[in-house]
Amino acid sequence: MIDLTGLKYDDRGLIPVIAQSADTGEVLMMAWANQDALRQTLETGRMTYWSRSRQSFWVKGETSGHTQDIVDLRIDCDQDAVLAIVRQKGAACHTNRRNCFYTSILGDQPEELFGPEA
Amino acid sequence: MIDLTGLKYDDRGLIPVIAQSADTGEVLMMAWANQDALRQTLETGRMTYWSRSRQSFWVKGETSGHTQDIVDLRIDCDQDAVLAIVRQKGAACHTNRRNCFYTSILGDQPEELFGPEA
Repeated sequence: MIDLTGLKYDDRGLIPVIAQSADTGEVLMMAWANQDALRQTLETGRMTYWSRSRQSFWVKGETSGHTQDIVDLRIDCDQDAVLAIVRQKGAACHTNRRNCFYTSILGDQPEELFGPEA
Repeated sequence: MIDLTGLKYDDRGLIPVIAQSADTGEVLMMAWANQDALRQTLETGRMTYWSRSRQSFWVKGETSGHTQDIVDLRIDCDQDAVLAIVRQKGAACHTNRRNCFYTSILGDQPEELFGPEA
């Protein structure tokens, strides 16, 4: 496995992770990982975040079944952000929407672009 | 303009911004904005970040000409991340690559997926 110590984690030991659908190209969500979560992701092939609220590993979809299987894991030029290309099973968002970015703030009021999955 | 005070900024007053190409769907970069940078983005229609290293506004492309014109600005379900759908002029990355996520870490060694633009 690749050496993950060279990435730039913040003062909490975390690095932002952007999940993008390998199928549709849509940006699904943004969450955080620490070095161990990235290691676990690479070992299992399943996206594992670090939950800041629960202070524990968060294997995406472990409860909901809405897992993210890793197609590629990329770092940016500054090595301080991760892009996870994933195969998303079901809805990515805990609101049961296909992705978390369903609210536009371009106008005077927030606009909901799409609702929960049927 | 929309009320930007309700978004969740971190203890530095910053919120992560993911820029995605409106044309190709590719994730171009991740950077940070504060409330004033988001306001300036909405007022000008041009993506404006907050530079953590320079501690100043960073109008993307102001020097390079590689601007990002806003097509949509979206927030996620937790209101702690922003997705900017943009029309990117030229290369998004300061390395002159079309996006910043050009390094795969899926294998044993980092693999460069594409090089700088011609």
